[in-house]
Amino acid sequence: MDFDAFFEAGLQGLREAGNYRVFADLERHHGAFPAATRYREDGSSQEVTVWCSNDYLGMGQSQVVTAAMKEAIDRCGAGAGGTRNISGTNHYHVLLEQELADLHGKESALIFTSGYVSNWAALGTLLARIPGIIVYSDALNHASMIEGIRHSRCIKRVFRHNDPEHLRELMAADDPAAPKLVAFESVYSMDGDIAPISALCDVAEEFGAMTYLDEVHAVGMYGARGGGIAEREGLMHRLTVIEGTLGKAFGVMGGYITGSKALCDFVRSFASGFIFTTALPPALAAGATASIRHLKQSQLERRRHKDAVAKVRAALDRQGIPHMDNPSHIVPVMVGNASKCKWISDVLMDQYGIYVQPINYPTVPVKTERLRITPTPLHSDGDIDRLAGALSDLWSQCALARAVA
Amino acid sequence: MDFDAFFEAGLQGLREAGNYRVFADLERHHGAFPAATRYREDGSSQEVTVWCSNDYLGMGQSQVVTAAMKEAIDRCGAGAGGTRNISGTNHYHVLLEQELADLHGKESALIFTSGYVSNWAALGTLLARIPGIIVYSDALNHASMIEGIRHSRCIKRVFRHNDPEHLRELMAADDPAAPKLVAFESVYSMDGDIAPISALCDVAEEFGAMTYLDEVHAVGMYGARGGGIAEREGLMHRLTVIEGTLGKAFGVMGGYITGSKALCDFVRSFASGFIFTTALPPALAAGATASIRHLKQSQLERRRHKDAVAKVRAALDRQGIPHMDNPSHIVPVMVGNASKCKWISDVLMDQYGIYVQPINYPTVPVKTERLRITPTPLHSDGDIDRLAGALSDLWSQCALARAVA
Repeated sequence: MDFDAFFEAGLQGLREAGNYRVFADLERHHGAFPAATRYREDGSSQEVTVWCSNDYLGMGQSQVVTAAMKEAIDRCGAGAGGTRNISGTNHYHVLLEQELADLHGKESALIFTSGYVSNWAALGTLLARIPGIIVYSDALNHASMIEGIRHSRCIKRVFRHNDPEHLRELMAADDPAAPKLVAFESVYSMDGDIAPISALCDVAEEFGAMTYLDEVHAVGMYGARGGGIAEREGLMHRLTVIEGTLGKAFGVMGGYITGSKALCDFVRSFASGFIFTTALPPALAAGATASIRHLKQSQLERRRHKDAVAKVRAALDRQGIPHMDNPSHIVPVMVGNASKCKWISDVLMDQYGIYVQPINYPTVPVKTERLRITPTPLHSDGDIDRLAGALSDLWSQCALARAVA
Repeated sequence: MDFDAFFEAGLQGLREAGNYRVFADLERHHGAFPAATRYREDGSSQEVTVWCSNDYLGMGQSQVVTAAMKEAIDRCGAGAGGTRNISGTNHYHVLLEQELADLHGKESALIFTSGYVSNWAALGTLLARIPGIIVYSDALNHASMIEGIRHSRCIKRVFRHNDPEHLRELMAADDPAAPKLVAFESVYSMDGDIAPISALCDVAEEFGAMTYLDEVHAVGMYGARGGGIAEREGLMHRLTVIEGTLGKAFGVMGGYITGSKALCDFVRSFASGFIFTTALPPALAAGATASIRHLKQSQLERRRHKDAVAKVRAALDRQGIPHMDNPSHIVPVMVGNASKCKWISDVLMDQYGIYVQPINYPTVPVKTERLRITPTPLHSDGDIDRLAGALSDLWSQCALARAVA
């Protein structure tokens, strides 16, 4: 078999469907974010404003975080040097896990190399190890949760997105004696909608199920101490597991779960994706700890971020640019056509120096193609006006429908 | 169901079998490695010498690496701020991938958040996407490769460890028309033995199979430029995929594959574990690039490392401490009894300030329990004498058999 020809054919299929991804080669500037240098394939470069980062609060550019990272490098060096069990546990890991347990009001926390791995390993381990368990998974759960569930090979039910009534129906139809787990997110990345956490917990409790909440798009950003939507709504104690990331609002990299001491210890002791991998570098743990501590007591970033989101929405409204209404910080500007979406994104970058990645199928359904805009506290009023103005120009050129005021 | 009671029972089972892991809480000291501070659970601390790190060459403590990391933090900040596709590709990633492709003489490279994820995602994607493919997997392959194969749900054959004849038998028995992939490692972590790469490639070529080589315990350490065992033996061109890590000899964190442009692009485009995860922080990519570049031209670390390994083996021989003979840098000191192995490790730490993690079942077979010692160029002659002396004391106390000189 000619393997390369097979790979090429697969890639050609993506190109023809308009789904072939070309990565924007960026260099973010410490202290100047959202400004970045974009390197073109021809070797030239261009200054751009980033409008699609998940560094939601700009903490990845904060002196609080970078100073902590550099200090940890000076103290401990670069990498951890091993798995957590074989020489790789650093005191910074221990402190970070204490900080995370405290953030979510749980007994314990466990860090992973990424949010993806935390979902995959934690769900994969819990669901594989509890005999006869049934998982109830929200229809729009993230790929990492789906992979964890798939890995476990347990019985799986998918409930309609954010629909507690459908969840109840499914749970009522199953053996009452079977152990159960309900897995869902708080803020969904692409539509920016928020789960009815309380209602989902009601149903889960009715059937004695564990609850597993992915708060990756909410930690640092919601709640008085940045504990996420569950903190804001006073619901943290009702979740068996709260999972989060250190790579979005906290500005670094890594993932984690929080829960009971026994649960975290169980995952720690049985999860292949935790056990057999090099630990996070001390500098990442130190940076994340500094970020979490800062956002536990500072409201400034969250307040400015809210303001920026409101300003972007208002600016888009003034230009009649249609965006999906939702109660979160994610502003999906709806284009509804894959090639126009890609074209707008290309022109925004090349002619306006504005970088917003197009989101096409399969990440979102066909005809809901969009520009996913993520305002940060570091975008200025001028940035916002330039974004809305550029979109207005392109809306006209593409003959796209305006939103009705 | 009382979930916590279930978890507790599982943990109790581990405790009773002597397999419950307690992590040593360490703080490595930049510039002073292998010295580290160990924090005890009671809050006190102790200075120890680390003898079981996978920071094989001490590059995690090298100014070359830490200076590059700090410079990248100063330029770009903390995290990447997104997935590779959505604002997370940084120019440092692009440079690192070029460096890695060059290291292994391949067209292209692709970085992942860890070596674990690189094996899981690359094997999982290749094997799931090529219809009817059969994988031939060495019996001692790492957990991450096994998980990738399991994920793909393809047909799997396990060949006896490092046995090209058994591989040939298995391949000859299968449909000649079926696409095939042979997956193995170069240096095996626990026994330190090395695969007959050339002979395995001969068999794979006979049957038109792709070859996938995990060099995580060899990159940076073998070959004139640190390309691994395949470089040392002039075999890199015969491997379809060479996989490696940035978290062991290179001293940082992250994993990668190298191969043809089409293959890497295919994995980049279809691997869930690559697509849906936050990219490596620029500082890690910068540190890894500096480390690779340094080890491409400097022989000093590799030469000193070889010397240290030889000195450790000689010192153990003088004391009659039995260690497994192998052609690599890993020195397995055989104890052959789980509780004695744990006891020796505990006393080494508490009374001698020497840290070597015990390796027990299921990581190694019962009755082959061992102390896995990894000398580095930074261990002094005094460190080596103290290690051998301490082991000799404990060998007497445990009434363990000495090796015959």
